[in-house]
Amino acid sequence: MMNEAIPAVTPLVRSLPATIPFVGPEAIERRTGVEFRARLGANESVFGPSPRVVEAMRQAASESWSYGDPEVHELRLAIARHHGLPPEAISVGEGIDGLLGLLVRMTITPGDTVVTSFGGYPTFNYHVTGHGGVLVTVPYRDDAEDLDGLLAKAKQTRPKLLYFANPDNPTGSWHEADAVERLILETPPETILILDEAYGDLAPPSALPAISLLRPNLVRFRTFSKAYGLAGIRVGYAVGDPSLIAQFDKVRNHFGISRVSQVAALAALSDQDYLRETVERIAAARQRLSQIAVAAGLRPLASGTNFVAIDCGGDGAHARRILEGVLRRGVFIRMPGTAPLDRLIRVTVGRDSELDLFAEALSGALEEAHVR
Amino acid sequence: MMNEAIPAVTPLVRSLPATIPFVGPEAIERRTGVEFRARLGANESVFGPSPRVVEAMRQAASESWSYGDPEVHELRLAIARHHGLPPEAISVGEGIDGLLGLLVRMTITPGDTVVTSFGGYPTFNYHVTGHGGVLVTVPYRDDAEDLDGLLAKAKQTRPKLLYFANPDNPTGSWHEADAVERLILETPPETILILDEAYGDLAPPSALPAISLLRPNLVRFRTFSKAYGLAGIRVGYAVGDPSLIAQFDKVRNHFGISRVSQVAALAALSDQDYLRETVERIAAARQRLSQIAVAAGLRPLASGTNFVAIDCGGDGAHARRILEGVLRRGVFIRMPGTAPLDRLIRVTVGRDSELDLFAEALSGALEEAHVR
Repeated sequence: MMNEAIPAVTPLVRSLPATIPFVGPEAIERRTGVEFRARLGANESVFGPSPRVVEAMRQAASESWSYGDPEVHELRLAIARHHGLPPEAISVGEGIDGLLGLLVRMTITPGDTVVTSFGGYPTFNYHVTGHGGVLVTVPYRDDAEDLDGLLAKAKQTRPKLLYFANPDNPTGSWHEADAVERLILETPPETILILDEAYGDLAPPSALPAISLLRPNLVRFRTFSKAYGLAGIRVGYAVGDPSLIAQFDKVRNHFGISRVSQVAALAALSDQDYLRETVERIAAARQRLSQIAVAAGLRPLASGTNFVAIDCGGDGAHARRILEGVLRRGVFIRMPGTAPLDRLIRVTVGRDSELDLFAEALSGALEEAHVR
Repeated sequence: MMNEAIPAVTPLVRSLPATIPFVGPEAIERRTGVEFRARLGANESVFGPSPRVVEAMRQAASESWSYGDPEVHELRLAIARHHGLPPEAISVGEGIDGLLGLLVRMTITPGDTVVTSFGGYPTFNYHVTGHGGVLVTVPYRDDAEDLDGLLAKAKQTRPKLLYFANPDNPTGSWHEADAVERLILETPPETILILDEAYGDLAPPSALPAISLLRPNLVRFRTFSKAYGLAGIRVGYAVGDPSLIAQFDKVRNHFGISRVSQVAALAALSDQDYLRETVERIAAARQRLSQIAVAAGLRPLASGTNFVAIDCGGDGAHARRILEGVLRRGVFIRMPGTAPLDRLIRVTVGRDSELDLFAEALSGALEEAHVR
């Protein structure tokens, strides 16, 4: 009804729901009036960025009167050097979310097919639906993406895009590089394979195909939001064959990355020692988080990320009761929205003090859930 | 040729040139090897943001491990309060450029008509072309947008979008509020009027229609990039009827605005005293810049912005020689790309020291241009 008043808006956009792929913890706090004591739901890194990054951002703050470089030249060069690739193989964007949106816009017209896992990354689905694409989904298998199933579906439907996250969100599972390489090589040539490696820095090195493996129909995504501890700056990048990467320049918001964010990402990249330390801290915290789940009688899934998915051993309603109990106790966590993954709760790693809070909240929530 | 290898990319995107709407000063520096001594080409505010903003950004830097609020709740509320409007009338985005891109995506399918001025804002045209829209242009008239001509063209072609900047970039001219109100009221109902008020804070108050004048087919854009001195943070906002504003939530990159940027914009908004001082400083600098042009024997156009367009009194080639002479002398300025506006050079206001540098560079460039 409301939209009848604005005929200029396309029928496609008029038909879209006004949903937000993820509700932020701030919105939950506003709704419940309870302030979270631990923020373990958005797969951010509580260990934060290198102190050198924070210092560089503070220095750069006073330069914010000027636009950041629209070519993101220095950062792009530094990323290329880091991977031993030409800068033409890199495009920097406003987080992987922003780059996914651009890639969907570059490829999808209404009615085009896209293959992904059922229960996979909601923000990708949001972009596909927003451009009128048709999602064809393949169920998870043993709480991991079904690589062979996805490949078979791609060969059958010849989609424009095939989405594969390695390691995966929300399960934390991963596939080994040789399997991923097979996926890359066997993806139909008319399909672009999206290899979302947001958690790549946190995965076993054996899970990552050589970054030099470029194909005109392959794009890999990396980010500063996870291991580098900089979710708040919104910087991610695409790695791919220069012929594909060049397309981003035709559609991106050239002045879209803030000056302070460019400085922050550059400083983060230059402190690889800090990254290594953080990866170790995250691995240790992941182990402790898994132990907390086991101690509570639940089953943690193996994870190559900065979070652990915990099987609550019941159905979606049961897991949701536990989730809500944990939230009520001031600990922000999330859970997948669709069966069968909705048996899981997803908990980001934290410092010992935060994991203590989670352990306590989980214990209380479980007690409450079983009493009912 | 190259693109034949990526059949998944749409024919539309394949057909687009890989242009950048504006080349950044950094790219010019890299090409020429000359570092600019004064940056007066991007209509940034050299007076910078309030010191309170810089302090708030420094404080927020260490919070960058966490995502910014995807609902941009606090900032949206503060903007709404500032204008005396409900928050549902506001959508915050990654600069006006980002919001223009979203609005075009919401409305334009290939072949749809868009009306704008010939020589108007290139980034808007970039988005329109990028979505397959067809630009119908109306020439400037006396170095100002031809309001009646645009309205007549809109009535004739019934476009999806009609773009009008007030004050205008690149001329600096403005129309009075009563004329703009007429444009608002007479725009065909099937057309959305974009009223780009990026420079609104710097215009004579008599140029701005009441912000409470909402229409389902009107969207106004404001920004923190100009008078607030925060081009580097990439925050702008749309003001409009809630029925239209709600559409942005269906297509935007919800986590796209950095945490530090949200904090910066909020702090900037809360220091209106500083804004008033800056507006005065800009007005004074604008006057001095006009005097420099007159002293050099050139004609400055009246400006309601933070820049002055200077008529070089010849053709595009003549103005370009002067522009290049100024650039070579280490002062970054720009010029419009299309006739007849390409008689102009566009110079952003600066501090006295920067305007001195410009005066000197202009004098040298003029001498050189006349000798040739």
